[in-house]
Amino acid sequence: MGKKKNRLKTPKQKPFAAPGSLTYIGKEVFEKTLIQLTVYNQETCDLAMIQQLDDLKPDFNDRLSWLDVDGVHEPAVIEHIGKKYQLHPLLLEDVLNTTQKPKIELFEEENQLFVVLKMLHFDEENLEIEAEQISLILGKSFLVSFQEQDQTDIFVAIHERIKQATSRIRKFESDYLLYALIDLIVDHYYILLEKLTEKLETLEANVLNDPKAEHQNQIYNLKKEMAFMKRNILPLRDIIGTLIREDSELVGNKVNVYLRDVHDHVIQTLETLDSYREMADSIMNNYHASLSNKMNSVMKTLTVFTVLFMPLSFIAGLYGMNFVNMPELENPNGYFYALGAMALISIGLWFYFRWKKFV
Amino acid sequence: MGKKKNRLKTPKQKPFAAPGSLTYIGKEVFEKTLIQLTVYNQETCDLAMIQQLDDLKPDFNDRLSWLDVDGVHEPAVIEHIGKKYQLHPLLLEDVLNTTQKPKIELFEEENQLFVVLKMLHFDEENLEIEAEQISLILGKSFLVSFQEQDQTDIFVAIHERIKQATSRIRKFESDYLLYALIDLIVDHYYILLEKLTEKLETLEANVLNDPKAEHQNQIYNLKKEMAFMKRNILPLRDIIGTLIREDSELVGNKVNVYLRDVHDHVIQTLETLDSYREMADSIMNNYHASLSNKMNSVMKTLTVFTVLFMPLSFIAGLYGMNFVNMPELENPNGYFYALGAMALISIGLWFYFRWKKFV
Amino acid sequence: MGKKKNRLKTPKQKPFAAPGSLTYIGKEVFEKTLIQLTVYNQETCDLAMIQQLDDLKPDFNDRLSWLDVDGVHEPAVIEHIGKKYQLHPLLLEDVLNTTQKPKIELFEEENQLFVVLKMLHFDEENLEIEAEQISLILGKSFLVSFQEQDQTDIFVAIHERIKQATSRIRKFESDYLLYALIDLIVDHYYILLEKLTEKLETLEANVLNDPKAEHQNQIYNLKKEMAFMKRNILPLRDIIGTLIREDSELVGNKVNVYLRDVHDHVIQTLETLDSYREMADSIMNNYHASLSNKMNSVMKTLTVFTVLFMPLSFIAGLYGMNFVNMPELENPNGYFYALGAMALISIGLWFYFRWKKFV
Amino acid sequence: MGKKKNRLKTPKQKPFAAPGSLTYIGKEVFEKTLIQLTVYNQETCDLAMIQQLDDLKPDFNDRLSWLDVDGVHEPAVIEHIGKKYQLHPLLLEDVLNTTQKPKIELFEEENQLFVVLKMLHFDEENLEIEAEQISLILGKSFLVSFQEQDQTDIFVAIHERIKQATSRIRKFESDYLLYALIDLIVDHYYILLEKLTEKLETLEANVLNDPKAEHQNQIYNLKKEMAFMKRNILPLRDIIGTLIREDSELVGNKVNVYLRDVHDHVIQTLETLDSYREMADSIMNNYHASLSNKMNSVMKTLTVFTVLFMPLSFIAGLYGMNFVNMPELENPNGYFYALGAMALISIGLWFYFRWKKFV
Amino acid sequence: MGKKKNRLKTPKQKPFAAPGSLTYIGKEVFEKTLIQLTVYNQETCDLAMIQQLDDLKPDFNDRLSWLDVDGVHEPAVIEHIGKKYQLHPLLLEDVLNTTQKPKIELFEEENQLFVVLKMLHFDEENLEIEAEQISLILGKSFLVSFQEQDQTDIFVAIHERIKQATSRIRKFESDYLLYALIDLIVDHYYILLEKLTEKLETLEANVLNDPKAEHQNQIYNLKKEMAFMKRNILPLRDIIGTLIREDSELVGNKVNVYLRDVHDHVIQTLETLDSYREMADSIMNNYHASLSNKMNSVMKTLTVFTVLFMPLSFIAGLYGMNFVNMPELENPNGYFYALGAMALISIGLWFYFRWKKFV
Ligand SMILES: [Mg+2]
Ligand SMILES: [Mg+2]
Ligand SMILES: [Mg+2]
Ligand SMILES: [Mg+2]
Ligand SMILES: [Mg+2]
Ligand SMILES: [Mg+2]
Ligand SMILES: [Mg+2]
Ligand SMILES: [Mg+2]
Ligand SMILES: [Mg+2]
Ligand SMILES: [Mg+2]
Ligand SMILES: [Mg+2]
Ligand SMILES: [Mg+2]
Ligand SMILES: [Mg+2]
Ligand SMILES: [Mg+2]
Ligand SMILES: [Mg+2]
Ligand SMILES: [Mg+2]
Ligand SMILES: [Mg+2]
Ligand SMILES: [Mg+2]
Ligand SMILES: [Mg+2]
Ligand SMILES: [Mg+2]
Ligand SMILES: [Mg+2]
Ligand SMILES: [Mg+2]
Ligand SMILES: [Mg+2]
Ligand SMILES: [Mg+2]
Ligand SMILES: [Mg+2]
Ligand SMILES: [Mg+2]
Ligand SMILES: [Mg+2]
Ligand SMILES: [Mg+2]
Ligand SMILES: [Mg+2]
Ligand SMILES: [Mg+2]
Ligand SMILES: [Mg+2]
Repeated sequence: MGKKKNRLKTPKQKPFAAPGSLTYIGKEVFEKTLIQLTVYNQETCDLAMIQQLDDLKPDFNDRLSWLDVDGVHEPAVIEHIGKKYQLHPLLLEDVLNTTQKPKIELFEEENQLFVVLKMLHFDEENLEIEAEQISLILGKSFLVSFQEQDQTDIFVAIHERIKQATSRIRKFESDYLLYALIDLIVDHYYILLEKLTEKLETLEANVLNDPKAEHQNQIYNLKKEMAFMKRNILPLRDIIGTLIREDSELVGNKVNVYLRDVHDHVIQTLETLDSYREMADSIMNNYHASLSNKMNSVMKTLTVFTVLFMPLSFIAGLYGMNFVNMPELENPNGYFYALGAMALISIGLWFYFRWKKFV
Repeated sequence: MGKKKNRLKTPKQKPFAAPGSLTYIGKEVFEKTLIQLTVYNQETCDLAMIQQLDDLKPDFNDRLSWLDVDGVHEPAVIEHIGKKYQLHPLLLEDVLNTTQKPKIELFEEENQLFVVLKMLHFDEENLEIEAEQISLILGKSFLVSFQEQDQTDIFVAIHERIKQATSRIRKFESDYLLYALIDLIVDHYYILLEKLTEKLETLEANVLNDPKAEHQNQIYNLKKEMAFMKRNILPLRDIIGTLIREDSELVGNKVNVYLRDVHDHVIQTLETLDSYREMADSIMNNYHASLSNKMNSVMKTLTVFTVLFMPLSFIAGLYGMNFVNMPELENPNGYFYALGAMALISIGLWFYFRWKKFV
Repeated sequence: MGKKKNRLKTPKQKPFAAPGSLTYIGKEVFEKTLIQLTVYNQETCDLAMIQQLDDLKPDFNDRLSWLDVDGVHEPAVIEHIGKKYQLHPLLLEDVLNTTQKPKIELFEEENQLFVVLKMLHFDEENLEIEAEQISLILGKSFLVSFQEQDQTDIFVAIHERIKQATSRIRKFESDYLLYALIDLIVDHYYILLEKLTEKLETLEANVLNDPKAEHQNQIYNLKKEMAFMKRNILPLRDIIGTLIREDSELVGNKVNVYLRDVHDHVIQTLETLDSYREMADSIMNNYHASLSNKMNSVMKTLTVFTVLFMPLSFIAGLYGMNFVNMPELENPNGYFYALGAMALISIGLWFYFRWKKFV
Repeated sequence: MGKKKNRLKTPKQKPFAAPGSLTYIGKEVFEKTLIQLTVYNQETCDLAMIQQLDDLKPDFNDRLSWLDVDGVHEPAVIEHIGKKYQLHPLLLEDVLNTTQKPKIELFEEENQLFVVLKMLHFDEENLEIEAEQISLILGKSFLVSFQEQDQTDIFVAIHERIKQATSRIRKFESDYLLYALIDLIVDHYYILLEKLTEKLETLEANVLNDPKAEHQNQIYNLKKEMAFMKRNILPLRDIIGTLIREDSELVGNKVNVYLRDVHDHVIQTLETLDSYREMADSIMNNYHASLSNKMNSVMKTLTVFTVLFMPLSFIAGLYGMNFVNMPELENPNGYFYALGAMALISIGLWFYFRWKKFV
Repeated sequence: MGKKKNRLKTPKQKPFAAPGSLTYIGKEVFEKTLIQLTVYNQETCDLAMIQQLDDLKPDFNDRLSWLDVDGVHEPAVIEHIGKKYQLHPLLLEDVLNTTQKPKIELFEEENQLFVVLKMLHFDEENLEIEAEQISLILGKSFLVSFQEQDQTDIFVAIHERIKQATSRIRKFESDYLLYALIDLIVDHYYILLEKLTEKLETLEANVLNDPKAEHQNQIYNLKKEMAFMKRNILPLRDIIGTLIREDSELVGNKVNVYLRDVHDHVIQTLETLDSYREMADSIMNNYHASLSNKMNSVMKTLTVFTVLFMPLSFIAGLYGMNFVNMPELENPNGYFYALGAMALISIGLWFYFRWKKFV
């Protein structure tokens, strides 16, 4: 987890544009937007890639439809879809702005529920967590999902499940499909938690073995990633809470038991993140403690050596003086007496150090 | 409380499974699941070990039944029981997942109350607190309890009490049995509090006598254990609060006075944990204070010796110079004057140290 | 306030006893329980020491009665009283457990209000605050008070007041008696606040004069005492708040103005404790600041002496070398030149120190 | 802002007195209580100093009256006024206790509103903030104000305004007079804020120029004053909030727009105090940072000099040895080679220091 | 971001003035107040600069009017406008006081909604954030906006939009105009966020490359700017929340979807500021960590050199003594033995350092 750039993802706005004007705000993407339409009920299920936007019609007599849009970088495409499904311009503005924070909003006039949330990926290359914005619009008989375009369509697993006639999605209304998509995203959070566990445990072991200055940096970076993750997940708790309390034509109470389950998982994710933060603080404390122990040991070594040799060197210097009359120097055993005095002083200081608990 | 592995018990999920699919998530267990059925009313009480799951029938004309399941590692067994008692698949998913956090949930359709809580054991070997997940399902005339399998069935005490015709359990509905099981678990928390008291007091005494680097580590580990304990107990406060407010067919108001008592004990446990955390912080402060006093003493010793001998050694060096013309050296008393100057300097520095409060 | 043992008063429970079984939990007491009964109305007032528990009858046709029980260490006595006044077993369990935290509880069936609070004494011997548990049960026409037995009956002042026919207690219902007892206990808290003021001011003065390592310990101990006091007083705020909001047969609104007064005092006590904690932190800061100033002064002294004498000693050593050809040594004024160079270096370093603000 | 005594103003109570007994608690005052009565309506306005308490009658047929009492140290006087205006004994107890915290209380039976607040003065002599307790009692057609007696009657400005027939006070009910008095007190808080601004800015400049140990003390004292100020102002926010929500005969909704204005100012004062606390913390941080920079510089100087001269002195010592056979000493250029080696070592160490960024 | 003066913008009041008296409180301005009136409905739109205040009439039969006042430093002008639009004196007092904090207030009698908020500019010269007070008064068919006068009228963009017949402002009521002005101000906050991003990233890079004492100062200044910004934006969250909940003749529910959008942006701004504060703390931590690493390195260098040369110099001193009988000195290889001993000691100490991890 080296030095990073661009971590400070400042939310952006187009300052002087009128509200509801559409501009893509996000990382550069060059691919074409992929649009997949799934029309289903308990008996039948048809999937198709949409090539011509003009063919798109939101109504399918009593069947439910799911429009999965992979890519939000082409305002014209989004606007076109917006018109077909009568989506509010402010809603589309948020879909195009990938710095939008997670939220839920009911567009009463259109009778649509708008949910923004964040898929989180672990970028193995830069060792950081990447957020992909997912926007979901739930209408009476349809659901539109928008995802930022990258390597893969994360909703593949749901597409697979929906094809099976026995799948619960086929038996419920579109609100269950909304739940299934949210559940999939939340399940991915657990994969990130395991990555974090791994990194924290490695770091803890390293700090205990041989603490280095770089470890401190690594802990800070880990804490930044965790804070980033928390900021992106925290709003989801209230979003799902709102869905549970909601009891409308759009989100019925039948799906509540499922929403409570995913709510539970979001809360567990957040609590785990909190306990990881405590863990990171504790590793940091260990780091500082062992550093401070080392410095104490350095200081004691310095003191012991200095205090030991200062008097000895002084005696040596004393008898190196060139005065004409220094009786000790004339004594044939003077040298040996001096050596004896030095030995006595050394022993005395040693006991002094033991008493002072320096050694 | 040495170095530990696996303390970071990350909650786990099966990312791409459909909601409600059953997989055991927990430590490996090889024993067979033990199932004990108790059927009772005020007059009669029958206990039996269930060998054949097919014989199990949840209804016992007007008598209450308690199914105590020891072991949640066999999905097939749990699923079988789930079908007999009409338990919701999401409920069973949570029973099998031993990383589930404590919670209460009402399954309205099934008219069942689902409570997850944590039995806490002190593992004397690894010197850490182990959590065992307890799931309780309260139905109209039955209670099903699931516990992780380990050395012992913790509900033995309740089994004993229920056998006695005078026991209050026999006179009340199944909600009192739910209370009795929760009360037993909460009573165990006090045993852990006493263990913590003991460890904190030993640690405090050790730090006061002779603070060592290892003590710091021990305090951190103790704080981790306390945080782990708090995380597992805290949700119980609201769970019991919910039971008290609840006034349904399942949990009547007659049992409220008992629930308030156990609520009281949970709060007391949590407050005690908080005051222990303060205590641990205070021990840590004492540790740092005495370490810092020691380092100050080291620095002062270094300074006093250096400052004392520097001038003396300089004088010695001065008269060790070999210039041809150094009048002092010729003086027959020069050596004694030099010794006298050194003595005066020593005395002067001593008073300087006293004035500066270095010694 | 030296080293203490037994400060960590862990709340205790009897783990495997059935709820409501009576065991005394508290410090050992050997005296007999003292029981004083006061029966009064506006006109008459009779006090008596109860020797025979069997004589006790809770009803006194229209007169109010107050049973003051001094000692809770004899379960049999408490159980007997419990039966006479129809007190709930769980209530008695709490009366006997002197580690119970302060609380209020309404026993609806019995139409009794149960209040637990803590009388706080300053133990001059061990320099610590001692808690004595007071349990009060308010019934329709009676009040039962339980206190732990020690040197004195704290309710003497109320007994004195009740004997006077003009006392307000005689004119009001039993709820005013409840208020009067709580007020007395709260009034005592102010005595402890004054003790703390005294100790804090002494400590502050000592730290300012001559900070010592032991002062740090004293501050920690004071903070522990304050935290202990706060833990015991804080619940009282909500307890009295509940009494004020309550408007039942037991606690009427006539007594509200008095309850608000004592509520006010509890809040003031708590706020004062908070400002004392800030004061203690500030003393601690002063302590650390002056310690750090002293260490800085030590380091500067070390540096100034070392830096000054290092070059001088080097020059002395240089001209102590025994090379055959050292022209300076031959110069008759060489010694004086060397002394001059040393003087110049000293002066130069002195200005360097002034510039660096080391001296 | 030097060392202070008596800053810890412990609230006081008379422990064993019956509730409502009157004792003055405050600093000693020897002057006579001054009592000024203003009776007014839109047309007329009469002011008088009351000499004889017996003449005092609270009713003035449809005219409003304001009794301004300067001095609360004479219980007899206060009690007399209390009887005339039917003030509750507990209310009078609070008026006499100058350690009472700010509060609002409705005496329902008497239909009186009781407000306690604190006038804050800056004591230029002791450089600390002094609190003067103001008690206001609002009745149906009167207002009684009590202030502690000191140099001046702070309500002079209101007395002046009330004399003018065009004043808004004359057109409104007594609730507006209550507002006007509170507004005056709150306006004074802004004067204290300016004093604090001045002190903080001076302190910041001094710390930036030349940080000294005494500055730390000054910051602590400033923070204490601010905390004292906050403690005295904070309750006022809720007091005025209560007045705004209140819509009774005593405080009508007509005065709401004015109360909201003063509410606004109280909140602004509190927010400013919070930002001052941050400012004080920031100055403290600057102080510590520059102290730590200085200590680092001291350590580096010590290290550079020691490391530089250690090897040089060693070489000098080496060639000061008196062995019979030391070839280098015999070499006629030995001395100059030694000097050269010393120079090379010095240069090498210099580059080493640069590389290590010590110099 | 150098040293600043006048950052402590103390809110000001005129202490002894009667409520509602008008005085300008703000920085000195000498220009004339500019007043622009826009009268519009869906079909027509007339703009005019007002030169004569007497011509001003607030009513325009069914057309909406917007009075944009640039400059609040002329009390006479503001008072005149206040009379024309029947604005409350307390409202005008707040308009003139540029230290007023953001707030919303409903003047019920006048049926006017009063909103104060802060435009924030980045002052490139002093490198600090400047606040400009904006006061908006929404009436039934008009909106009056007051802004402090400086270089430019910030509402130019809205003036441009309103001129276009297709603009949404022309189709909605005056509440949408209120929204549009608030939205413009909030959009500007994003520009400041980008400035802060830039500064934080530069600072982070600098601290990582070469931490200097001045960086610490820069971080403190940045945090002060952020705190200033937060203080000015935070109240806006509740202000807009109030507008959303409000459903009156003044602010209808049709504009809710737009208000929710700007509410969203305010919350995002605040959350971003919080994450910036964390970022600043993290930079500060990096700074301290690298400083502490450097000091450790200094201490180790000092210790290694001292410990290494102390024994060597002692040996040199030993054989520099002038005793008559020192056998080693007579030995022809004595010098070389001594050199060998010194080498051995050096090597031994080196291994000791490696073992102690000092080098
Ligand atoms: Mg815009
Ligand atoms: Mg992205
Ligand atoms: Mg994608
Ligand atoms: Mg899931
Ligand atoms: Mg729902
Ligand atoms: Mg689940
Ligand atoms: Mg799943
Ligand atoms: Mg487990
Ligand atoms: Mg088990
Ligand atoms: Mg229990
Ligand atoms: Mg209940
Ligand atoms: Mg109990
Ligand atoms: Mg029990
Ligand atoms: Mg029990
Ligand atoms: Mg006790
Ligand atoms: Mg007692
Ligand atoms: Mg009292
Ligand atoms: Mg009441
Ligand atoms: Mg009072
Ligand atoms: Mg009293
Ligand atoms: Mg006072
Ligand atoms: Mg006065
Ligand atoms: Mg004012
Ligand atoms: Mg009102
Ligand atoms: Mg105002
Ligand atoms: Mg005023
Ligand atoms: Mg301004
Ligand atoms: Mg302007
Ligand atoms: Mg906008
Ligand atoms: Mg609205
Ligand atoms: Mg938006």
